[in-house]
Amino acid sequence: MLYEINEKALKLESEGKKIIRLNIGDPDLATPDEIIEAAYAAMKKGKTKYSSSYGEKSLREKLSEIHGVSSENVVITAGSKWGIFATMYLMLRNGGNVIIPTPYWTAYDLTAKSIGAKTKLLKTELDDKWRIDLDKLEDLIDEETRMIILNNPNNPTSKVMDQDVLDGIVEIANRKGVTILSDEVYGTISFVKTKSILDYGGNHILSNGFSKTFTMTGWRIGYIIANKEFVDKMTKLNQITINNVPVFIQEAALKALELKEQLSTAIKAEYQERAKMASEKLSKTALEFTEPEAPFYVFPKKRGLDSVRFTLDLLDKGVAVAPGTAFGDYPEHFRISLTAPREEIKVGLDKICEALE
Amino acid sequence: MLYEINEKALKLESEGKKIIRLNIGDPDLATPDEIIEAAYAAMKKGKTKYSSSYGEKSLREKLSEIHGVSSENVVITAGSKWGIFATMYLMLRNGGNVIIPTPYWTAYDLTAKSIGAKTKLLKTELDDKWRIDLDKLEDLIDEETRMIILNNPNNPTSKVMDQDVLDGIVEIANRKGVTILSDEVYGTISFVKTKSILDYGGNHILSNGFSKTFTMTGWRIGYIIANKEFVDKMTKLNQITINNVPVFIQEAALKALELKEQLSTAIKAEYQERAKMASEKLSKTALEFTEPEAPFYVFPKKRGLDSVRFTLDLLDKGVAVAPGTAFGDYPEHFRISLTAPREEIKVGLDKICEALE
Repeated sequence: MLYEINEKALKLESEGKKIIRLNIGDPDLATPDEIIEAAYAAMKKGKTKYSSSYGEKSLREKLSEIHGVSSENVVITAGSKWGIFATMYLMLRNGGNVIIPTPYWTAYDLTAKSIGAKTKLLKTELDDKWRIDLDKLEDLIDEETRMIILNNPNNPTSKVMDQDVLDGIVEIANRKGVTILSDEVYGTISFVKTKSILDYGGNHILSNGFSKTFTMTGWRIGYIIANKEFVDKMTKLNQITINNVPVFIQEAALKALELKEQLSTAIKAEYQERAKMASEKLSKTALEFTEPEAPFYVFPKKRGLDSVRFTLDLLDKGVAVAPGTAFGDYPEHFRISLTAPREEIKVGLDKICEALE
Repeated sequence: MLYEINEKALKLESEGKKIIRLNIGDPDLATPDEIIEAAYAAMKKGKTKYSSSYGEKSLREKLSEIHGVSSENVVITAGSKWGIFATMYLMLRNGGNVIIPTPYWTAYDLTAKSIGAKTKLLKTELDDKWRIDLDKLEDLIDEETRMIILNNPNNPTSKVMDQDVLDGIVEIANRKGVTILSDEVYGTISFVKTKSILDYGGNHILSNGFSKTFTMTGWRIGYIIANKEFVDKMTKLNQITINNVPVFIQEAALKALELKEQLSTAIKAEYQERAKMASEKLSKTALEFTEPEAPFYVFPKKRGLDSVRFTLDLLDKGVAVAPGTAFGDYPEHFRISLTAPREEIKVGLDKICEALE
C-alpha cells in the first residue's frame, strides 16, 4: 500500500497536481554540495569502472573506524534496502522463519514473502509506548527461527528502543542462537542517545545507510556490518547482482563521513524543529501519539479511523501520507513523514487536522 | 573463478604491482565527458532523491522508441546483471530449470545456483563455430523448463548467432512455451549485423545495458524489456531491493542515448581495431579461435592446456586473463578481454604468446 500510494502521488504530480508529500521518508533537503562535488571530482578522475563487490577499501576502513570493527566486517550495499534484502535472502531462502516486531517498515515483510520465508509478527502498541514484550518474543522463537529484525530507531513510530528492552532482546537472541538484524538507519541523527547492536556481543548484523543522515536517499548506498564469513557471502551475492556501488558514489559517501559532524548536526537540528512543530499541532487534536525521538515520522492514532480510506481521501485533497495498515495491523493509525519544507508541513498538518474533524 | 581472479588482480594492484588487466570486460576507455556532465548537472538540479522503481519516464520513453516497443514494456535496472538476476529470481525461485548454452557468462550459472534453480547446460564447440545444435536444444527441454538464456553476441566467444540458428531457437521456444531471456549487452556495438529477440514474436525478455556501448560499466545501469505484466513484477522486486537507479545516473544514460550515433561509432571502431590486432597476433601461434564479430573478447584454445594453472601463472607474470573453466567445460580455452589501451594489449598478447611456448 505504501508503494501504491507513492506511485499514485508521483502520477498525480506528473499530471501537474500539487501534492504535499508527507508519505515517504525522502527528505526535501538537498544533498549537501560538498558531497555532490566529491562525486563529480571522482567521475572526472575516471572512477566510473567496475570495482570490488566488497566496496572500496577507503570507505570500508572509514566505516570500520566509526563503528569500532575491522574493515573485513564491512560490505558496501546499494542502499540499506538492498543490504536488508540480501541479508534476508542469504539467511532465509532455504527455509526458516523471521520475527518482525510491528509496526514495521513494509519492506521487511514484503521481502520475507518474496523469498518465501515465514514471518512471525510481534505486535507492539501505542498504549505500551511501543515496548516489545520480552516474554512474547521468547514464546515466538521456535526451532525454525533464524532471525529477529529490529528497527531502532523505529519507522514509523520514531521511537528509540528503551535500553532495558534491547538488553533483554539481545540476551534472549544469544541464548537461543538467533541472529538479530538491526536496521539503525535513523540512529546517527536520533534526538536521544541509543545503543547500537554492535555495542553487544553475539553474532548479529547491523544495517545502516547514508540516505537519512546525509540526505542521500536517491544515491542508493548503505552498508552491512557482520562477521567476516557473512561479509564474504554477501560479497558473492553482490558479484551476481549489483556488482558494486558506483565508485564515484562511494567517494561521495566517504566525503560525507569526513564531514559527518558538521553535516549531520545541521540536518538533525532541522528535523528536531519539525518534530516539535508537528507534536504541538497534533497534540491539539484528538490524535494520540508518542513524540518523535528520532527523524522523521509521527505515527498518530485516532480511534475508529479507517486509515486506507482516510489516506486516499487525503491524497485527493493534495496531501500524501501513509496508512497505518502499511506497517502491520494498525488500521487506526497513519504515518506522517516530516520530510517537506516547514511551510508545506504546516499546510499539510492543517489539512490533516481539517480532514479529521 | 572469474571473480576470484579479479579480486586477486585487484589485490596485487593495491600492493603496487603492475597488472595488465585482460580478465574482465571493463573498458579502459573513459566514460565520455558529455555523460559525466549530464550526471553532474542532474545532481546540481537536486535529482538526488528516491524515484519510481520503474525508472524515469523520459528514459523509458527514449528506450521504447529505440526498440520499437511501448514504454510500459521497459523497466530500468541497476546494471544488466541485476536485470538478469531479477528475471531469473522471478521466474525460477519456485522451481523449474533453465537451459544455458555454453560457453556462458559465469553469472548465469552462479545466479541459477544461488536461486536454487536447476541448470541444463548445452555445450557448443569451437569446431562447430559455436553453433547451437537445435535437436540437442529440443531434447533438453522438459516439463520443468522455464527459460532459455541466450547471450547474443556471446561472451566469451564474441560470436554473433547465425540467423538460421536464432530463428530455429525461437521457433522451438514458442512451440514449447519456454521464455527466452536474451542478453544483448554487446549487440549495439557488434561488428556484424545481428537480430534482436524483439524482432520475433513470442513472450520473450530482452536484457541490455549501457556499460559496454557507452563505457559506463561502473555506473550500474541497464534495462529489461518484457510484457507489461512482467515489468510490473520486476518493479515490485525493485521496490524491495534496489528501489531505483539514482536519477542523476538515469539522466546521464539518457544523454548517452541522445548522442548514441556519435559515441557508439567511435567506441565500436576502437574495438574493431583491437580485435583485428589480436586476431593477427594470435593467428601466428598454435591457438585456435573464431575471429571476434563483436566486442570485446577472444576465446582461444590450445589443445592440452590446463587453463586454471595457465591463468594463475600468467597473473604472476603480470597479465590477468580468465580461465576457460569459468565459462563452462572449457579447460583448454582462456578468455582475453581487449579492454586495455592498445599498447598494453600488445604487451599482454606478447606475454601470452611467450607463456604458451
